[in-house]
Amino acid sequence: MSLLQISSFAAGEWIAPGEGARTIASAITGNPLASAGNSALDVAAMLDHARVTGGPALRAMTFHDRARMLKALAQALTARKQELYDISFDTGATQSDHLIDIDGGIGTMFVFASKGRREMPDGHVYLDGEVEQLSRNGTFLGQHVCTPLHGVAVHINAFNFPVWGMLEKLAPTLLAGVPAIVKPATNSCYVTELAVRIMLEADILPKGALQLVSGGIGDMLDRLGAQDVVSFTGSADTALKLRSNPHLLRNSVRFVAEQDSLNASILGPDAEPGTPEFDLFVKEVSREMTAKAGQKCTAIRRIIAPEARVEAVLDALKARLAKVVIGDPRREETRMGALVSNGQKADVLEKADILAQEAERVFGNPESFEVQGADAEKGAFVPPMLFHCADPDTAERVHDTEAFGPVSTVMGYRDLDHAIAIANRGGGSLVTSVITHDPSVARDVVMGAGAWLGRIYINNRDSMKESTGHGSPLPHMVHGGPGRAGGGEELGGVRGVKHYMQRTAVQGSPEMLSQIGGTWIPGAKEIEGPAHPFTRKFGELSIGETIYTDPREVTLDDIEHFAHFTGDTFYAHMDDDAAKRNPFFPGRVAHGYLLLSFAAGLFVEPNEGPVLANTGLDGLRFMKPVSAGDSIKVRLTVKKKTPRTDEYGEVRWHVTLTNQDADKVAEYELLTMNAY
Amino acid sequence: MSLLQISSFAAGEWIAPGEGARTIASAITGNPLASAGNSALDVAAMLDHARVTGGPALRAMTFHDRARMLKALAQALTARKQELYDISFDTGATQSDHLIDIDGGIGTMFVFASKGRREMPDGHVYLDGEVEQLSRNGTFLGQHVCTPLHGVAVHINAFNFPVWGMLEKLAPTLLAGVPAIVKPATNSCYVTELAVRIMLEADILPKGALQLVSGGIGDMLDRLGAQDVVSFTGSADTALKLRSNPHLLRNSVRFVAEQDSLNASILGPDAEPGTPEFDLFVKEVSREMTAKAGQKCTAIRRIIAPEARVEAVLDALKARLAKVVIGDPRREETRMGALVSNGQKADVLEKADILAQEAERVFGNPESFEVQGADAEKGAFVPPMLFHCADPDTAERVHDTEAFGPVSTVMGYRDLDHAIAIANRGGGSLVTSVITHDPSVARDVVMGAGAWLGRIYINNRDSMKESTGHGSPLPHMVHGGPGRAGGGEELGGVRGVKHYMQRTAVQGSPEMLSQIGGTWIPGAKEIEGPAHPFTRKFGELSIGETIYTDPREVTLDDIEHFAHFTGDTFYAHMDDDAAKRNPFFPGRVAHGYLLLSFAAGLFVEPNEGPVLANTGLDGLRFMKPVSAGDSIKVRLTVKKKTPRTDEYGEVRWHVTLTNQDADKVAEYELLTMNAY
Repeated sequence: MSLLQISSFAAGEWIAPGEGARTIASAITGNPLASAGNSALDVAAMLDHARVTGGPALRAMTFHDRARMLKALAQALTARKQELYDISFDTGATQSDHLIDIDGGIGTMFVFASKGRREMPDGHVYLDGEVEQLSRNGTFLGQHVCTPLHGVAVHINAFNFPVWGMLEKLAPTLLAGVPAIVKPATNSCYVTELAVRIMLEADILPKGALQLVSGGIGDMLDRLGAQDVVSFTGSADTALKLRSNPHLLRNSVRFVAEQDSLNASILGPDAEPGTPEFDLFVKEVSREMTAKAGQKCTAIRRIIAPEARVEAVLDALKARLAKVVIGDPRREETRMGALVSNGQKADVLEKADILAQEAERVFGNPESFEVQGADAEKGAFVPPMLFHCADPDTAERVHDTEAFGPVSTVMGYRDLDHAIAIANRGGGSLVTSVITHDPSVARDVVMGAGAWLGRIYINNRDSMKESTGHGSPLPHMVHGGPGRAGGGEELGGVRGVKHYMQRTAVQGSPEMLSQIGGTWIPGAKEIEGPAHPFTRKFGELSIGETIYTDPREVTLDDIEHFAHFTGDTFYAHMDDDAAKRNPFFPGRVAHGYLLLSFAAGLFVEPNEGPVLANTGLDGLRFMKPVSAGDSIKVRLTVKKKTPRTDEYGEVRWHVTLTNQDADKVAEYELLTMNAY
Repeated sequence: MSLLQISSFAAGEWIAPGEGARTIASAITGNPLASAGNSALDVAAMLDHARVTGGPALRAMTFHDRARMLKALAQALTARKQELYDISFDTGATQSDHLIDIDGGIGTMFVFASKGRREMPDGHVYLDGEVEQLSRNGTFLGQHVCTPLHGVAVHINAFNFPVWGMLEKLAPTLLAGVPAIVKPATNSCYVTELAVRIMLEADILPKGALQLVSGGIGDMLDRLGAQDVVSFTGSADTALKLRSNPHLLRNSVRFVAEQDSLNASILGPDAEPGTPEFDLFVKEVSREMTAKAGQKCTAIRRIIAPEARVEAVLDALKARLAKVVIGDPRREETRMGALVSNGQKADVLEKADILAQEAERVFGNPESFEVQGADAEKGAFVPPMLFHCADPDTAERVHDTEAFGPVSTVMGYRDLDHAIAIANRGGGSLVTSVITHDPSVARDVVMGAGAWLGRIYINNRDSMKESTGHGSPLPHMVHGGPGRAGGGEELGGVRGVKHYMQRTAVQGSPEMLSQIGGTWIPGAKEIEGPAHPFTRKFGELSIGETIYTDPREVTLDDIEHFAHFTGDTFYAHMDDDAAKRNPFFPGRVAHGYLLLSFAAGLFVEPNEGPVLANTGLDGLRFMKPVSAGDSIKVRLTVKKKTPRTDEYGEVRWHVTLTNQDADKVAEYELLTMNAY
């Protein structure tokens, strides 16, 4: 019998299993499949390699460089995803499960690649929020910045999604500029190992950026410091054990935990049988119960329905679950495969028995159910199991026992407050869904249960065609939850990247902050360029490059003319008396858009050149009215440059309009696309 | 001898000291001054009172309501601040120290009051970031929201700033809508108790919003859950003890820690003697050493200067420190008062002896120094103590021993990388300052040391007149630091408020998200109002109220005319061939500002009415060019309403311009001020 030899990748070398290796069985046959683990693994050398080689190499790249790297990794995985599908069946997963794990994981990488390019700078410092005015004259300002941690991210992942579970942590980590050591759960580590091999073979990552532990991590956690992060997904018991590590506590090591969660789905009071919402509810609940055989941290464990609808919900769910074909996940007709191991099966059955103390088992008998194309005795198969808890108020175990399989409990509620109270008995969850067409129901759930939840998923007839599913964490949205769910947060776009960066409040003069952030701030040095900035290519422009225009008088004729030409005859521009009654104006004033238009006329360079288009404008504020006879002039400064395509980049210009007294009249940021 | 009886305020009652009370001595005389503590305090009832009475009352208020409440509290404290000054001297603090503690604390309340009004909505849900597009057709979207936690914030404060230390935590907590239980350090709790009395007597707070523990908190921490927060400021040892509490760990109770910090100040390589920066450095360092007798979590413990300047720095510091008058803090000529207690004095002297193992004592002999107007033997007086560590690379204690008094160590560096490496030996700090006029020095420190720091303070000749001081945490900027500093974050404007809220990812249809956030989103219901929205007062307008204008054709004459009128003869508007060579345009196109101006002409209601002014515009994006012969029409929708003054509020309008094919041409948000 030849076992797959699942290696670790440590300090640049593949290390085959050795002393202390564990045998991993197929979820379908129960036969030994693979071997992983080596107690001689040098975890100190791994940490050194990440810190000394991986970190500096990643930090030398810009956010855009790293985003491009993520995209290339995602493409490399896409090119070889059939290999990942093929090896994944033995975890018990079906082809639809693979789409969640493998395609979902790759999709997460693509989204972070895209957000890295669109929402982060092509530089080394991420600016967090706006400049803070700390002084009257603006010579001393504040700006929060994020820079990459100088340590290593240790990712401890759960068995259920060996690819997505790695990539959803890896994408934000690498984008932040931090090297990772990935430790997948041993039960399915052969899939993760293949994904790591694919990424390393593509030769995209700098040395030391990614290492893999197949098997145990030894005393790695005892060697971490304040620049390191532990990101953990798994059981509450393991999380508690790890986070209690005195070394981690003493060094304030960041610990991001995503653990147990008794997620709920609430059927809105409005969603009676016969409505699209009722059918949608039944469909989402049964899908969440059976997808990945219920081994999803976001699966619906508690089905909360109006008391009067409990019977109808039970009937509809039983009918749907009865159609679920269980069996060899390689067969096309199989809807639900096996749990990951017989150990997990024993655990799920034990937890189901605990639920049975407080709830009636209304569907699914683990002693008697059909398994197609596989041996039900040898593989880790269980049927979907549905319970009904008649008294969710006095019950306790249904709110704190997570049977990590296709197991869920229906409970009735009296009114929406009661439904919210039941949901909150979960003590903090990753997600609650609400199926309702009534916005006030959705709003009440957000206000009443939001504080207990990392995510609230609202669905109804309007959104069901495009909705993404109760159970799907999306890279755009935070994933995690308070309390029992672990108190951590992952994903959420740039929010997730920040978990691997340090936010620092920087205070200093405008010039200092401009140079640090690569973004010009009023008060910083203004650079006189060799020519009109509109004649200069993207690459030639310097941050701070500035021109001042000549002044232009705004006449009453201009105002009259503009009003009649555009049709904007608002009283503040036309009627001196009415304007005077207005708290903002001294009398008739020029249109804001007239000022913007004249400003463009003052600063524009008319001839064909590298400026391709004015694509937008941000943060325009009118600060002082302009009356007939006043004159305006413009200061135009390069604030920020961001590459956008292979041909051109975005230039953000800071624009200030002043009047003849040098008072600011208007300020805004102008966007142009400029050829390289 | 009659002692001040320092009470707790628990579940609506003042509870006088009782069994287990501790006697507190005056820092100046060493004589017993006050008594605090009562082991019969019912902490369970306090938690209940906060959760059942305080929380719901606070959550019923909007962010603006709570911001107004903060302002009123700050005004009440201002009105009685002389009483706070008077009682504070016995902590050893001088009048200048009172300004930091009392005026600084009140100022923090005012800033949060102002930020609450300006940066948060007049509603119950704070929107965190932009809408996320989760679907192609936009029927299913994402939005992160923050709602208040449903528990209680337990604030455990340090002795050094009995007023600021309370208010810097209380302001964001109350603004979030969460009740607080404040437990000041016993040594100076009589000052905190008076501040609490002043706030409660002003009768501004809802019942249960604020409680006080003078003395020990019993088993309060063992009774906290996932909706509660512990915010701790104090020693690393105490922090470790508290955060290791298995109950807190098991329930993922948020624990915000701000503990030890070996802050540094770096003299830039450019700042030679004779430069303004050299003098500034000496001034800031000596001020930080002696303010509050060095009992500041942000005080400079490590003075890092170029090796060649160490001698000059030592000489300048010794000369300055020699002028510091130590004595009774009530005397006007006193520059430095006493430590808070003789216990602290013993601790500081012990730590100074530890430093002396690795560094030479170059100023300050605790056995022999002058104290004016007080008994040096009885009061907790120490002199400023300056050390010089000749080998900061091999030294260890100077980087991890915080002598919490007027104690600091000078160390020399070879080059900037070496300076950064020395600073990072602190293992995570609240703040490092860099005194330099060279932006590249500042930038290198941010990139090299930022990951170890909560704050970087840069100062030089350009900013020194308005700079706020190395040691001053500002309400606008985050305060906290990684590693040894505790890994927590406080303040930072709205960031600090979020520590007391839960962020939840909400997914749903545009209508659902609009109703939850009180902000219209494209795709949500459009409401037809009874009249043109510009004729309706602020209070009459509904979120979602929409008008569509008639279309208007844009002619070549319009483009020509606008170009010559404004002077904007950019080639894309004037030269068909040149425009065609541009990747964005099909030929000559209309000016973006022409479209904006025509749009205003289409939707404006010219007559005098409740719209007072167009104050600005955000997020304008041009999406499709408009050629001569195309026509545009406008959809104008009320997106959001925010009260601004007693007379008017801001209306944010969502504006979409479409062409004759219903393609979007431009989109933006328009701001107007509307009378109530």
